[in-house]
Amino acid sequence: MTPRAVDLIRRKRQGGTLEPTEIRWLVDGLCSGSVPDYQWAALLMAVMWRGMDAEETEALTHAMMHSGTIVDLSMIPGRKVDKHSTGGVGDKTSLVLAPIVASCGLPVPMVSGRGLGHTGGTLDKLESIPGFDIHLDLDGYKRVLADCGLVLIGQTPEIAPADKRIYALRDATATVESIPLLTSSILSKKLAEGIDGLVLDVKTGDGAFMESLDDSRALAESLCRIGRGLGKEVVALITRMDQPLGKAVGNAVEVAECVRVLRGEGPEDLRDLSIALAAEMLVLGGVAESLEDGTELCFRSITTGAALDHFRRVVEAQGGDPRAVDDLTRLPVPTVLRDVPSPSAGVVTSCWARPIGHAAMLLGAGRARAEDAIDPAVGILLHKKLGDRVAEGEPLCTVLANAEGPVLDRALAEVAAAFEVGDGPVTVPDLIVERL
Amino acid sequence: MTPRAVDLIRRKRQGGTLEPTEIRWLVDGLCSGSVPDYQWAALLMAVMWRGMDAEETEALTHAMMHSGTIVDLSMIPGRKVDKHSTGGVGDKTSLVLAPIVASCGLPVPMVSGRGLGHTGGTLDKLESIPGFDIHLDLDGYKRVLADCGLVLIGQTPEIAPADKRIYALRDATATVESIPLLTSSILSKKLAEGIDGLVLDVKTGDGAFMESLDDSRALAESLCRIGRGLGKEVVALITRMDQPLGKAVGNAVEVAECVRVLRGEGPEDLRDLSIALAAEMLVLGGVAESLEDGTELCFRSITTGAALDHFRRVVEAQGGDPRAVDDLTRLPVPTVLRDVPSPSAGVVTSCWARPIGHAAMLLGAGRARAEDAIDPAVGILLHKKLGDRVAEGEPLCTVLANAEGPVLDRALAEVAAAFEVGDGPVTVPDLIVERL
Repeated sequence: MTPRAVDLIRRKRQGGTLEPTEIRWLVDGLCSGSVPDYQWAALLMAVMWRGMDAEETEALTHAMMHSGTIVDLSMIPGRKVDKHSTGGVGDKTSLVLAPIVASCGLPVPMVSGRGLGHTGGTLDKLESIPGFDIHLDLDGYKRVLADCGLVLIGQTPEIAPADKRIYALRDATATVESIPLLTSSILSKKLAEGIDGLVLDVKTGDGAFMESLDDSRALAESLCRIGRGLGKEVVALITRMDQPLGKAVGNAVEVAECVRVLRGEGPEDLRDLSIALAAEMLVLGGVAESLEDGTELCFRSITTGAALDHFRRVVEAQGGDPRAVDDLTRLPVPTVLRDVPSPSAGVVTSCWARPIGHAAMLLGAGRARAEDAIDPAVGILLHKKLGDRVAEGEPLCTVLANAEGPVLDRALAEVAAAFEVGDGPVTVPDLIVERL
Repeated sequence: MTPRAVDLIRRKRQGGTLEPTEIRWLVDGLCSGSVPDYQWAALLMAVMWRGMDAEETEALTHAMMHSGTIVDLSMIPGRKVDKHSTGGVGDKTSLVLAPIVASCGLPVPMVSGRGLGHTGGTLDKLESIPGFDIHLDLDGYKRVLADCGLVLIGQTPEIAPADKRIYALRDATATVESIPLLTSSILSKKLAEGIDGLVLDVKTGDGAFMESLDDSRALAESLCRIGRGLGKEVVALITRMDQPLGKAVGNAVEVAECVRVLRGEGPEDLRDLSIALAAEMLVLGGVAESLEDGTELCFRSITTGAALDHFRRVVEAQGGDPRAVDDLTRLPVPTVLRDVPSPSAGVVTSCWARPIGHAAMLLGAGRARAEDAIDPAVGILLHKKLGDRVAEGEPLCTVLANAEGPVLDRALAEVAAAFEVGDGPVTVPDLIVERL
């Protein structure tokens, strides 16, 4: 007997459990149009309220994953491993680790997303490279992966179309922050890419979607349990997102910072986290025996220039200007630069990620709404971070904009308020909190 | 600054409170299309989860009421009072009390609804009278009211259009049973009719939407508080709906039973509850000084035939065949009659309303879905009710159908299971539990 959507919504609303076949029927119905958006919206809020158990979450992930094509990458030799981050401010590890891992001989088929709210997105960053095309079709995706060892694209219409629809509904109905819904969204599209293993960077703290460590751990556990239940090797690192990662927040400035890391110059926190994640990928992919071996391979790939070379190649293969990799002045530049001076001498005791991410969004580096346009040149360059000494009047950061006016003034005020300068000393916590 | 629907949904989801201006903006947005159905569906589930306080419920009611025309009945002298029931099985008091009250000189502008699920609806019952038209426009509504002293129609497009949209969404998203949503739905359309006072019949028990007395009382209190807050006189009776009201469940059979009550013949429980509600209306309308006076006026209107005469007049004014009022064989009749015999001798210890209502729905007297068609002739005639003595094999009831087959068999089984016959004695509780 065909279920009725309203009865399934009612059961979830009352705290009951949905059967795997019922969940698949709901997902198929969303895609075919037989279950309308408004019934799904009510269901999503009921899931937000009552949760889903592991079996339901696995069934939802499986149904969403199979709503489109499962990419067949078997023509490319070796295991395929991807990384996913739950999102943060200045969180640009993908652009660093993908070329590193590829240069170590492990193919990286990476399907990324856009930023929303205070967080940035890998696709927006890549598009700040003149000409870079993130809209490859599945043939192009496989060809670039085979040629360069890595590929960096956005979600194609074939990959997990149910996720695209459900995500748009969640974004419009305030049902994003649900562990089963986050789990199924992340895993359905990642597992449909044709990968064998997945390394997760689950952020925790002020600038993360999950601010508390308990919530972050619950999300990491759910991702590992469901991903492994669906037959993939999954490792998760829980990492701090209280202050931005690295010193650049924006799009072109973040690409430039990644290039500097690949040249052996960039900030240590970004380099170390990128390499920690890359080493996990190398172990999952069977290229390194241990995390120590993997870490050494990563450092070597930077030193030899192999990683930078891979990045240059993928930029060119995806239509971007490879000269921008060697001459960073070819990236978009802002016209208005404004320093934010320290109000006093002392030590930086906070450098909150969320208001800095929000200020960058206001400037045009991110989106308040999915349809907003991005300005690739704007953003924030941090000169001081947690624990750094600063003199009175010395710049804490520089705000990069393309216009004077009230928006810039508001961004400057938000950035200034994100910093606290005190007497110190300050203990800077380890970036990696836990490994699952 | 314009609010964003997603932010308001999030606030409600987190247990916060919406401002009256925000609620009005959401209701206006639903009507204009600027806030899509799926955002409203998520909001409705969030309200189901977190509730609404009295101020929010009043604002929602007010906004829904003002989403269309507030009917101006000032050209008709005297106060205007209506009655609303939260719905039950065999619940046909409207057809009895409206002509009684009108014949006592108080105008009754009655806007009714259709049945859904196990409950019947006044409009479906009226439509079983050949020719009866419940689709009057506002001019027709006022003209019949002025000519007959009463009018019995369905919700017009002008009256509370927001309620129509929200109700359809609630019905499809399992968000019906919420006290603030029930309150705003009931009151917005009733108050938009142009009335001065409202008598509420809030059902409690097995056949009611609110099964527990606590829930029924909470709904009654909410209806009184919000209705009075919006400047209307409101009285609520909480009444039992454990067994059907009267002895007929269906459409034509219920009309016939009402006519019998108006002739002084019908079952006492239906007559007494109808008169109790009618007396409240007469007091609210200033026609009776006290409930005792009102009750006496009602009995007199039956004895003199004035009430029946008013019913005949409104049937004729709304296009119905007035001869059906005097010759009940002109109402639709079923072709298949099947008695349900008592399995043993004893006393009827239960005669559950919900399974009887459900069986009537299966037969075609009601709707599983809003788009289902009604068969006016089918239903159930009870011969025995709570506390009645019955011999083994004596009919407990007769099922009225228009076809043999598995649907009839299932209805017969459900009806049989609704009765329990034991040793007794049985205390039949008072129909009216509380008055607010």
